[in-house]
Amino acid sequence: MIQTNGPARPPLQVSCIQFEPQMGAVADNVARSSALIRAAAASGSRLIVLPELANTGYVFESMEEATALAEPAKSGPTALAWGALAQELDVHIVAGFAERDGDALYNSAMIVGPDGFIGVYRKSHLWHRENVFFQKGDLGFPVFETAIGRIGVAICYDGWFPETFRQLALAGAEIVCIPTNWVPMPNQPEGEAAMANTLHRAAAHSNGIFIACADRVGVERGQPFEGQSLIIGPKGWTIAGPASRDQPETLTATVNLDDASAKDLNEFNSVLRDRRTDVYG
Amino acid sequence: MIQTNGPARPPLQVSCIQFEPQMGAVADNVARSSALIRAAAASGSRLIVLPELANTGYVFESMEEATALAEPAKSGPTALAWGALAQELDVHIVAGFAERDGDALYNSAMIVGPDGFIGVYRKSHLWHRENVFFQKGDLGFPVFETAIGRIGVAICYDGWFPETFRQLALAGAEIVCIPTNWVPMPNQPEGEAAMANTLHRAAAHSNGIFIACADRVGVERGQPFEGQSLIIGPKGWTIAGPASRDQPETLTATVNLDDASAKDLNEFNSVLRDRRTDVYG
Repeated sequence: MIQTNGPARPPLQVSCIQFEPQMGAVADNVARSSALIRAAAASGSRLIVLPELANTGYVFESMEEATALAEPAKSGPTALAWGALAQELDVHIVAGFAERDGDALYNSAMIVGPDGFIGVYRKSHLWHRENVFFQKGDLGFPVFETAIGRIGVAICYDGWFPETFRQLALAGAEIVCIPTNWVPMPNQPEGEAAMANTLHRAAAHSNGIFIACADRVGVERGQPFEGQSLIIGPKGWTIAGPASRDQPETLTATVNLDDASAKDLNEFNSVLRDRRTDVYG
Repeated sequence: MIQTNGPARPPLQVSCIQFEPQMGAVADNVARSSALIRAAAASGSRLIVLPELANTGYVFESMEEATALAEPAKSGPTALAWGALAQELDVHIVAGFAERDGDALYNSAMIVGPDGFIGVYRKSHLWHRENVFFQKGDLGFPVFETAIGRIGVAICYDGWFPETFRQLALAGAEIVCIPTNWVPMPNQPEGEAAMANTLHRAAAHSNGIFIACADRVGVERGQPFEGQSLIIGPKGWTIAGPASRDQPETLTATVNLDDASAKDLNEFNSVLRDRRTDVYG
């Protein structure tokens, strides 16, 4: 159990794995990500985040292709592989994958831990042609109570909506893990840092939570990705990264999740308590 | 009237005046700010933003001091002076002042225009010892329909709450004017850009609105301020500034407020429409 009022928990080492999945090469993507997870665990990390759709690649060309690559959340080969690895290494893994549930596909992330499968989150806000292939998430914004802390999950475009982080923070999330495949934004000036970094730093500050973003790199079927993964502390300052724009890289930070319980900015102000719920609900 | 479905409006030049009010020197602060407003208007600006509590200074030492410096919103000498100036120069001014209404004090901003007084906004989220002197704003988040566009107003710590900008954007604000007195945040790394810049860029991007922030500079009774005023476009990219940390400076940008009507990020996605109101209301 989490001891938020008891003795402080030991520091937690977190890693975000920025890598380049290959379109459609599920077995290879799982094998390469597993090797990177092993390396992060060997360095001491106990919470490891992978990108969005890390087992399949991102740019599907048809519903048939997407359906063929999607797997059941708990019993698919990807879930079994990452779940067994989490058990073997005594780590928690949050990783994006294409989920199939009956005829419905979801852009999902699983959380697996030392005791195996913990749960799944289904992306709530679908970006661009994801709307062609996936259903909108129907599981809300769950917070997973784990032995290492209260973990929220959101995926890529979910992070464009401040409501995502408010929901998760109000539900007690201490750290939000973000599997993502960030793409350039409209009117983005040449060389400008990813807008996503700004959005997530603001969200961490406004909610007093840690946020760990694992992006992919590379260009897939003409679609470039942004890289620039980062780990952010609960006052909104970057504590690891941003990673490079185009190279694989594992970011690591050591955090004290108890720091996410201190929502205060000074002796008068506290970011969740100060909300004017009488004005905006 | 605003012609959001008619011919495009002419471009609007906006200025944010970063200056250093002197504690308690109301007449001098109004005179100096008026000279800066005249200069901005002479350069072509038609919407001019001043800092928070621009007529009084910020760090009150007692209720007596605050009460003595506060004025009625519409009929006080500051409102009459800035109102007359707006009429003379044919500009809109958004400016912070200490408001007295009966026994109650508010940290407010007035909007005055070519036809005189338009309205007042009372700060909803009070920072630090403001809680000793001021009542929480009781006017919600009004959007002022003006001849130049739909203008929202928020003050300093209001900008820490994503709800502020959602309320204003959903009510149709095209530009949000931010009179502010930003101070350093907890754990702020030496030399790091103001967290406020991150928060407001995120808010502009997530709501597809312009945001114009006018901060003060200087150190008052031991309290340093951040400067770094900026003007942000509706995709979250900075279009003027950030200004310096410690010097007076007038920022100017030319904007097309019609751009705030285009909430789309691509042919599938639109930042307000994509909200999962079925999940988070």
